[in-house]
Amino acid sequence: LGRRIGVLGLGLIGGSIGLGLREADSTTRVVGYDPDRLAVLGALERGAIDEAVDSPVEAATGAAVVMLAMPVEDIAATCSALASGLDPGSIVSDAGSTKKGVVEAGESAIGPRFVGGHPMAGSERHGIDAADAALFDGAWWILTPTSRTSPDAYSDVSAIVQSLGAKPVAVDPEVHDSLVARLSHLPQLTASALVEVASTASDRDALLGLAARGFRDVTRIAASNPDLWVGIVRSNRPAVLEALKGLAGRLQEVSDMIERGEWDKLRDLLDRTREARLGLFAKPDFGGEPVGLTLMVPDRPGVLAEVTTAAGQLGANIEDLRIVHSTEGGRGRLELVLAGRESAELLVGALVRLGYRVDRVAD
Amino acid sequence: LGRRIGVLGLGLIGGSIGLGLREADSTTRVVGYDPDRLAVLGALERGAIDEAVDSPVEAATGAAVVMLAMPVEDIAATCSALASGLDPGSIVSDAGSTKKGVVEAGESAIGPRFVGGHPMAGSERHGIDAADAALFDGAWWILTPTSRTSPDAYSDVSAIVQSLGAKPVAVDPEVHDSLVARLSHLPQLTASALVEVASTASDRDALLGLAARGFRDVTRIAASNPDLWVGIVRSNRPAVLEALKGLAGRLQEVSDMIERGEWDKLRDLLDRTREARLGLFAKPDFGGEPVGLTLMVPDRPGVLAEVTTAAGQLGANIEDLRIVHSTEGGRGRLELVLAGRESAELLVGALVRLGYRVDRVAD
Repeated sequence: LGRRIGVLGLGLIGGSIGLGLREADSTTRVVGYDPDRLAVLGALERGAIDEAVDSPVEAATGAAVVMLAMPVEDIAATCSALASGLDPGSIVSDAGSTKKGVVEAGESAIGPRFVGGHPMAGSERHGIDAADAALFDGAWWILTPTSRTSPDAYSDVSAIVQSLGAKPVAVDPEVHDSLVARLSHLPQLTASALVEVASTASDRDALLGLAARGFRDVTRIAASNPDLWVGIVRSNRPAVLEALKGLAGRLQEVSDMIERGEWDKLRDLLDRTREARLGLFAKPDFGGEPVGLTLMVPDRPGVLAEVTTAAGQLGANIEDLRIVHSTEGGRGRLELVLAGRESAELLVGALVRLGYRVDRVAD
Repeated sequence: LGRRIGVLGLGLIGGSIGLGLREADSTTRVVGYDPDRLAVLGALERGAIDEAVDSPVEAATGAAVVMLAMPVEDIAATCSALASGLDPGSIVSDAGSTKKGVVEAGESAIGPRFVGGHPMAGSERHGIDAADAALFDGAWWILTPTSRTSPDAYSDVSAIVQSLGAKPVAVDPEVHDSLVARLSHLPQLTASALVEVASTASDRDALLGLAARGFRDVTRIAASNPDLWVGIVRSNRPAVLEALKGLAGRLQEVSDMIERGEWDKLRDLLDRTREARLGLFAKPDFGGEPVGLTLMVPDRPGVLAEVTTAAGQLGANIEDLRIVHSTEGGRGRLELVLAGRESAELLVGALVRLGYRVDRVAD
């Protein structure tokens, strides 16, 4: 193929994307940019990029795909800066930790060829030195198509994500933001708050070294990059505030139970959350044999997002997808490949409820 | 030696103690009791005990040391039940997760030969099947001597703990309870609350599977045994409530910062907690070459606790300790072996401030 992919931002995520892209296909030419010269040198040295350029626009010029792996608060401005210089067929995707604002800005600047994304992988380490081609191996990579997203662009980004070893799953941008507020941003802030509470009594600091594994695990993420996290929280303010409020309410309930000696209620809570925690990762692995589905869809905006986010909300993993436009106009055929019969059946049910007619492709 | 050690409670902790004791010294005879017949059978099968008996009293009869590894809320009643049947020289220690109430009950029933303890090791798994001789390897094992504790009993329990691979450190019972409330009980309850918040929106449950490693780490302990935890929280009510209040306050501060857009303040908080978290385990390892200290002490209760808890609060690890009683009466000589010169120097400073005269033993 030999296509050119621009990677903007050469930290943990951008560096890992570069390493993974080059490992997956040696003919891909990865062109990288980062305002930090040391990051650029590191990326060249580690083989995360083939070529370094001096500006975001240069990295995007002639690129089939541009991956934005910079801090989330810089993505909107970068999209605006890139817009006019992009080739007509170029696709832009990002790896920002929040999506609603980013996707709005990306679509407004780039149009239907902007596909929001967020790899659910990371590390408390950061920077190019921590980059690793295996970072995304087996991890979920959320994509956030909307009613405007081009199916071809979606399909292309999905293929890139899979070439990095990740499993793409489509989620509505706003649902994504609420989800990561609860699954990521809230735990992050809480870990920091727990460290503060633990280290309150200064005269006993030496004793903190006694902390057992539980405390170490719970607070591990408190060692993450503060600047990065301020940016993330800032870009997801309403959802984070709601999540914090939710936690405060739960903790107050726990306090009340203990204060009142309601031990059965406390046991119920711990039982329930134990089950939930154990069940969380015992979920059907969204995996299995590929199953093909095909459905006729009206050739109007929103169809792709409706179908892919239905899949995402069911936990059905779309492995491949393309739209065949009808020559008669007005309608097209959407072809999907789902991972696993269970996923496929769930999705067929949901799509039928949404009014689609779905056919299974014979094995 | 061939001495008899009774282990009461054959779950994760009791089973691991039994396995470790037998591995450390094949002449030790471990006699075990548990009300749960399956636990007893498992302990015999796994080789955690040499002999099973039918009651706590039988396990304690003729034992040089009795280790109580039962749920914390059962320890007080067990101490009362054992008291009259114990040999005069027998030592009783426990592994309960809270110490103030346990130590009061233990001392009231057993006297100066009760030594409170708490291994800072554990697992989200529980029961005899999860028992492991290596569970305590390199872990801290808090001991909570008081003004009543017999130095010989303390020294003996400390040696047992070390034979299990753990590092004993002395802490005042009340300081211990406040510490574990903040380092263990609060994170435990918070992990459960975070799982509740995450799984609130039922229609999106499938998406929880997307959680990245951070969430998995933070909530891992939410899979712990609910019955065990209700018992622990119940036995440490005031300290847990205070810790919960502390966390609620911190989270409110975080909310306020986000609400008001005080990003510099949020960055400061994240910076501070990052440093604290990184520093937590970069502390002097309480380790190093053994250094001998000797000090003349008045032959009165409380001296041992004063010295050992001073060491604990400094993070100085007492590796060995004995009291040589003076024939002239009224005074004795306390001999200590500290791990590392740094520990020794810190402790000498603290002891001098407490009014002791300390001599270093020549290498």
